[in-house]
Amino acid sequence: MSLGKKYKRITISKLIQEYISLTGFENPSKALYTSVKELVDNSLDACEEARVLPEIFIRILEVDPDKRIFNILVWDNGSGVPAFNVPFAFGSMLYGSKYTTKQTRGVFGIGIKNVILYGQMTAHYPTTVISSSDGRNIYYFELLMEVSENKPHIISCKRYVANFAWRGTLVSVFIKGNYRNARHRILEYLKNTAIANPHAHIVFIDPHGVVYEFKRGISEVPEPPKETVYHPHGVDLEQLKEIILHSRSKDMISFLMDNFQRIGRKRAIEILRKAGIPESLNPKKLTISQRKALLDAFRHVRFERPQSGHLSPIGDHILYEGIRKELLPEFIAVSARKPSSYRGHAFIVECALAYGGEIKPKDSFKIIRYANKVPLLHSLSEDVSKKVVDEIKWSRYGVPMQAPIVIVTHVCSDKLPYRTLCKEYIADIPEIHQEIKLALLECARKLKLYLSKKKRRASFLKRKAILEKYLSKIAFFASELAEREPPEYSSLIEKLEAEAIGKEGRVEKEANSS
Amino acid sequence: MSLGKKYKRITISKLIQEYISLTGFENPSKALYTSVKELVDNSLDACEEARVLPEIFIRILEVDPDKRIFNILVWDNGSGVPAFNVPFAFGSMLYGSKYTTKQTRGVFGIGIKNVILYGQMTAHYPTTVISSSDGRNIYYFELLMEVSENKPHIISCKRYVANFAWRGTLVSVFIKGNYRNARHRILEYLKNTAIANPHAHIVFIDPHGVVYEFKRGISEVPEPPKETVYHPHGVDLEQLKEIILHSRSKDMISFLMDNFQRIGRKRAIEILRKAGIPESLNPKKLTISQRKALLDAFRHVRFERPQSGHLSPIGDHILYEGIRKELLPEFIAVSARKPSSYRGHAFIVECALAYGGEIKPKDSFKIIRYANKVPLLHSLSEDVSKKVVDEIKWSRYGVPMQAPIVIVTHVCSDKLPYRTLCKEYIADIPEIHQEIKLALLECARKLKLYLSKKKRRASFLKRKAILEKYLSKIAFFASELAEREPPEYSSLIEKLEAEAIGKEGRVEKEANSS
Repeated sequence: MSLGKKYKRITISKLIQEYISLTGFENPSKALYTSVKELVDNSLDACEEARVLPEIFIRILEVDPDKRIFNILVWDNGSGVPAFNVPFAFGSMLYGSKYTTKQTRGVFGIGIKNVILYGQMTAHYPTTVISSSDGRNIYYFELLMEVSENKPHIISCKRYVANFAWRGTLVSVFIKGNYRNARHRILEYLKNTAIANPHAHIVFIDPHGVVYEFKRGISEVPEPPKETVYHPHGVDLEQLKEIILHSRSKDMISFLMDNFQRIGRKRAIEILRKAGIPESLNPKKLTISQRKALLDAFRHVRFERPQSGHLSPIGDHILYEGIRKELLPEFIAVSARKPSSYRGHAFIVECALAYGGEIKPKDSFKIIRYANKVPLLHSLSEDVSKKVVDEIKWSRYGVPMQAPIVIVTHVCSDKLPYRTLCKEYIADIPEIHQEIKLALLECARKLKLYLSKKKRRASFLKRKAILEKYLSKIAFFASELAEREPPEYSSLIEKLEAEAIGKEGRVEKEANSS
Repeated sequence: MSLGKKYKRITISKLIQEYISLTGFENPSKALYTSVKELVDNSLDACEEARVLPEIFIRILEVDPDKRIFNILVWDNGSGVPAFNVPFAFGSMLYGSKYTTKQTRGVFGIGIKNVILYGQMTAHYPTTVISSSDGRNIYYFELLMEVSENKPHIISCKRYVANFAWRGTLVSVFIKGNYRNARHRILEYLKNTAIANPHAHIVFIDPHGVVYEFKRGISEVPEPPKETVYHPHGVDLEQLKEIILHSRSKDMISFLMDNFQRIGRKRAIEILRKAGIPESLNPKKLTISQRKALLDAFRHVRFERPQSGHLSPIGDHILYEGIRKELLPEFIAVSARKPSSYRGHAFIVECALAYGGEIKPKDSFKIIRYANKVPLLHSLSEDVSKKVVDEIKWSRYGVPMQAPIVIVTHVCSDKLPYRTLCKEYIADIPEIHQEIKLALLECARKLKLYLSKKKRRASFLKRKAILEKYLSKIAFFASELAEREPPEYSSLIEKLEAEAIGKEGRVEKEANSS
């Protein structure tokens, strides 16, 4: 019986090729959208790495209308990929530069390879990668992926020495797509990207030759995230094993101090005493039960919250500016929370609420979600943000569900709890849920304040119109009767106005500075 | 700048260890549920392979209440795993026996390894596997997973020669869990498994010592699925490459006939002519452009629908029996569709609708979903079945959304479009959507018929009571007047009854035979 079973090994590329719907390529329209998203996310990461203002150019061409084959070209001015790394970085899954403890948009090291894999499954043209990481030597690669071996297959490779300075990467890939159905999603993705990255300049030329330009709103480069070491609460037995493997410490005290956040000499001694481990022990000699005792001791010690220097939040004024330039609302409230943590991983939540202006009322609030600055467009109903929005009693804040409101949420962390390989939504982790809720309630309170001020203002303006109409007459007749000059009553109205509602424009500014 | 980038390679195990929420282990309660699910699914597959009536025993013990460490033990009478394969089948991802073209519950070859990985991250006890594939030699393994190499690490291995006949597998694993929160899901999973597999006998002992038994409802073993070759419409360039690699055919005609469904000699000649490929060409010599031409030719030829011998639907009477024994409803309608296909992959949809009886009314219909006989408990709102149920205008069939209704859907295919690595839901593919809709509409029509018959019956019974009351008097007085014996009128009422509503119990039987 057992002979009938065929045990075999496959590569990750083969698994994904067989179940391409795992990675967001379940039909030609979704595939076109996902491809653009993966390429642009990569470009933005490369620009952050290079600390430059992103200049991203995207072009989609329909090269074979009969078979619906499209060419996607994305060009950036980012850090470039060193020539030596190009073949594997583009042609082999689970190889890349994103396996760090700092926040990046890409994390799994499979996104761009999925695009190339889907391309060769459906169009079978080689992918072209042109890159320069030093601004002088430009490398040109044409490559395919060897799925059964998860290795790149290089078709051709050339080196040019440029007589101009260009650093960055250009990727050109052919895939089967459907632009008519994907158009809406691609534009939504680019618009939402522009909101969260107002320092980027993005130009997109679609297959009909229509040019969409997302202009730069601010010209400061966000502070890039730094690498960090683990927080003691974020470590499991497997990670501990790896930290020990790479550590050069000769004794346990320096091992703890060098490899973990928030551990000084005093605390290290306390932990080792709790765990019953000698201070002078070489960490490589820890037994399995000692490792378990160490993690137990971690759990019974109170540490400060994880550091957040490796995170890169959008920033409240950048988020405000992005929303202002792309959504043109009447009112914006932004709430940026302090770093928090779940299971030892730091995370930061930023939320915003935009009301009125160019925003049109709908059946329910529109929710724009970001994870590590990347817009999430699918599986809304499973996402933690949607669950929070549904939980809040909005009527308490004077807004019906049909109000013209857009909610923006951003969660960033070095370890986001994604639920799918195409990072479509993040899991409903209690700590993240709570932070989003607090941020949105703060925005809701600001909105309530604004709306009540607006109401008061409207009712005052009505009274003011009546006052102005009759005050002039009263003043005129009173001065006639008293045979004196008519008094200056306009300052009186201004004073009343200031008392009742504050100067015009104050509300917007307050929201800005929050 | 580029020097700051650290390119490196990781294994699939490492990726999953870092992002364990990808595979359904995002918290201790979900982890306990997912572990039971993966182990039981595997056991059911092994029993199907061995063509035996499944006897599955599950025990969860809380071994360390302070640290919430649980031991899960699952024991089956399936085909067993050959000793040579045990270490890799349990300790290395992307290795297994499920990479075939026939339908199995497991498909990715990572499920059971995730359980072992999560166990060693949180409890770090070795996993025990005891297995016999020949009924005589029993092998005992203790193993861990080497995450950074994706390889098993064998702690100990022994062989016993049994003086009794036992074939099957026993797995015992330690994980951090939360039974209080997982209890409900685990019982729901087991109950739904019992509905779809009424030939299985499942016993579960929970940490409190409570025994749950799911008795066998029928004692026939379902026909096991067979391996198949590809349908021409389900092949992409990467698959074609692999088929060519493994083919032993010397010319194109036999290559097409041997490696694809629905291609005879005549059709093979037609395809080759369309593609402009010589009939006698050795398939290994096909150029890339010839391969593309071949796939193009496939696309322009009409083939019969894919064969479905490699699929294993539940079967309408088994589904009926499973629902009857577990839900105890008043009425059941089952609709099993004929095999259909999407992108060259055959699939079969089976749906059922249960009404009344022990089913309690809720705010909306309860939906029990199956994919390849495996119950799906999470992410309902994204699933194709939910979308279909929401689309149907139930009021047209005389049922409000609060009616006491349970809907059961089953989709089986060798290639289900799963969206997550833990197979929580299937994508909304138009072809599958349509088949589910047709099946549910058929069930809804049957329900409508039943309800209207039930209504007619109730109103007739009322009339019957009146008739019976007065008919006897009329008959008595009439016979007195006529000075004759009173006539036999009961056959008259029976006749009327048969005309109006049919015999009692007919409705249930009709539903059964549908």
